[in-house]
Amino acid sequence: MDRTATSLDGTGEDNARGIPFDHAKLDGLLEEAGIDVLVSTSKHNIQYLLGGYRFFFFDAMDAIGVSRYLPILVYPKGRPQDAAYIGNPMESYERDLGKFWVPTVQPKTWGTLDAAALAADHIASLGLSAKRLGVEMSFLPADAFEALRERLPEASVVDALLPLERLRAVKTAAELDLLRLASEKVVASMLAVMGGHGAGTTKRELAEALKREEVARGLSFEYCLLTVGKSHNRAPSDEAWQPGDVLSLDSGGNYRGYIGDLCRMACLGEPDQELVDLLGLVDEVQQAARKPIRSGVRGGDVFTPALTILEGSSHRPYTHFMAHGMGIISHEAPRLTGKGAVPYPGYDEDRPLQAGMVVSIETTMLHPRRGFVKLEDTVAVTQEGCVGFGDSGRGWNRGAT
Amino acid sequence: MDRTATSLDGTGEDNARGIPFDHAKLDGLLEEAGIDVLVSTSKHNIQYLLGGYRFFFFDAMDAIGVSRYLPILVYPKGRPQDAAYIGNPMESYERDLGKFWVPTVQPKTWGTLDAAALAADHIASLGLSAKRLGVEMSFLPADAFEALRERLPEASVVDALLPLERLRAVKTAAELDLLRLASEKVVASMLAVMGGHGAGTTKRELAEALKREEVARGLSFEYCLLTVGKSHNRAPSDEAWQPGDVLSLDSGGNYRGYIGDLCRMACLGEPDQELVDLLGLVDEVQQAARKPIRSGVRGGDVFTPALTILEGSSHRPYTHFMAHGMGIISHEAPRLTGKGAVPYPGYDEDRPLQAGMVVSIETTMLHPRRGFVKLEDTVAVTQEGCVGFGDSGRGWNRGAT
Repeated sequence: MDRTATSLDGTGEDNARGIPFDHAKLDGLLEEAGIDVLVSTSKHNIQYLLGGYRFFFFDAMDAIGVSRYLPILVYPKGRPQDAAYIGNPMESYERDLGKFWVPTVQPKTWGTLDAAALAADHIASLGLSAKRLGVEMSFLPADAFEALRERLPEASVVDALLPLERLRAVKTAAELDLLRLASEKVVASMLAVMGGHGAGTTKRELAEALKREEVARGLSFEYCLLTVGKSHNRAPSDEAWQPGDVLSLDSGGNYRGYIGDLCRMACLGEPDQELVDLLGLVDEVQQAARKPIRSGVRGGDVFTPALTILEGSSHRPYTHFMAHGMGIISHEAPRLTGKGAVPYPGYDEDRPLQAGMVVSIETTMLHPRRGFVKLEDTVAVTQEGCVGFGDSGRGWNRGAT
Repeated sequence: MDRTATSLDGTGEDNARGIPFDHAKLDGLLEEAGIDVLVSTSKHNIQYLLGGYRFFFFDAMDAIGVSRYLPILVYPKGRPQDAAYIGNPMESYERDLGKFWVPTVQPKTWGTLDAAALAADHIASLGLSAKRLGVEMSFLPADAFEALRERLPEASVVDALLPLERLRAVKTAAELDLLRLASEKVVASMLAVMGGHGAGTTKRELAEALKREEVARGLSFEYCLLTVGKSHNRAPSDEAWQPGDVLSLDSGGNYRGYIGDLCRMACLGEPDQELVDLLGLVDEVQQAARKPIRSGVRGGDVFTPALTILEGSSHRPYTHFMAHGMGIISHEAPRLTGKGAVPYPGYDEDRPLQAGMVVSIETTMLHPRRGFVKLEDTVAVTQEGCVGFGDSGRGWNRGAT
């Protein structure tokens, strides 16, 4: 706290003094969006704006007592020296460890209303009561929103989601390292589960085993979608893996705030030629999708070679291709299409990819006889092309027999 | 789905047919609160109303794409046959596994606005557009709230937090089993970490080890607050456990939706007489607090014998006593006092305890020379007294030497 409290003196050397993101870029994005004061309340954007900080006590849940945890970061455009973070009293432990770059830290609140009141008071104390506030409408509780409006009746409100997503779109070298590690750890966990289990293991047991493997590798487990046999049902259940069966594991694991999200396949026994061909097609589509990727290429062009292969295949009716950005959350900028499973405005379809963007590529075949066959890969855009993260285990892995 | 869809025929036998909570009690609480239609949006209350269901994909996070996961359960008072659940498309996997008792399940939404629109449409289709809606203001995103109001302009709004907390206050035998197991697993994890680590292990490593131990026992790790040595700072850090040092572990672990939340102590080496006496006092306060607990006793009376002992102690200035209900979340009804660390309206201070309520009891000593000494226990109220969950390891445990 003291370290940074004295450093934001407007001498233009803020970045050297601990602001963990490109605040000139943020200021430009806020200006473009018509925002005077950013009021961030989502865990993922606060994590980004605080340089990777996420309060450990409320990492997995929000509810406590008669309300919930609501962290608030107030950032007046162009005035990082006036930024404030409002958090829970237990975050004083983190303040005392020097975790915050913001000059004002108020670890004082147990609910939504006291947090909103402190944020409003801070904004008013800066003389910004009648300005345009940028809030995260999907991550701001209704009662906190009402409290803000009551205390700042002259302020107007704009949604800040888009500028914050833009701010995060191009990853730093440190962020790319975390995404690579997250991806590698998720795949290593999957291969351990596949090779360590066999006939009779239930989907519930496989999902639990994957959770243990991911946690053992330092990940926070987020989810596991999985299928066995001919089923396309991806929920954990008492259904068991049987000899000859296909197993698909699709999991998200979080490493220090960044997501690894991949899908790998296994067979219990040797896959027959048809299975080899089906996964071969999925792999061919995945590899084709990587081909056009490099800095400067139109976002939507990622789809062209993949869809060309699919259009020429008899498996087209039940095979889907999708590509989307990822990073702190599992679907974020670049938004390459609005045509995928997640309805995702194709904001970046006609914009150029940039080096440092990270894209998840997924080809999903819901084969009517053989089951669910899918690969999901993560690639980072570079100047010359792209680099895969966690690229191992992309063929048929084998269960324990 | 089909199983329950045909069962809610108003014959008065709903409970036998799968409604997993006391809906007559809920109806009474809603009536008392002036609510015609409950619109629940918190993960914990939806878990309760759906009989333990929590969608695994969004268990750990909410954000996706340009919005977030927002499950909505609509329950018109007295009309369970008209209840609806609105969820994510991937929840069709869970619907197909028969997880929902509600007659209408719409797994269709990827964000807050489409979810709010479907909820409003369902309410309108029942002819309830001009009624009083009970919403969870702290767990309803501002944009979803605005969408509800826009589509149901004649409806009025009441906060549903209190009736839902009342509904959950007395636990069933099945819930008590889960809370007992959660508590036992948390304590077993702590004892494994304490006995398995020694000099030089950092707080960060100890917290990671506890996470692994909890996950290995089937828990979802929620948090670990911990101290070593003389420090009162409870955040994970690079500070290391040293010979002669005190270690406190306070952790929340979630077993199938129910929290174990306890604190245990260890010493690296033999504790000296002063340490034995300090933990002895903490234990004495904890045991005294259990004494008055039984069905029918005034809630606030839990504090009397504990505070009497503390008032007679020279350690009073830095020792705090607290008791609060727990269950699905770590602070819930019964709310026994407004005087604790978490500002908690003492709604139950003058009400009788009931068998099946579960209370967390915590005595926290911030000793100026010896460090942080604390016990936190979980007890269930019975007709005759109370029963402790996870009552092992309450003395000085030993680190590995």
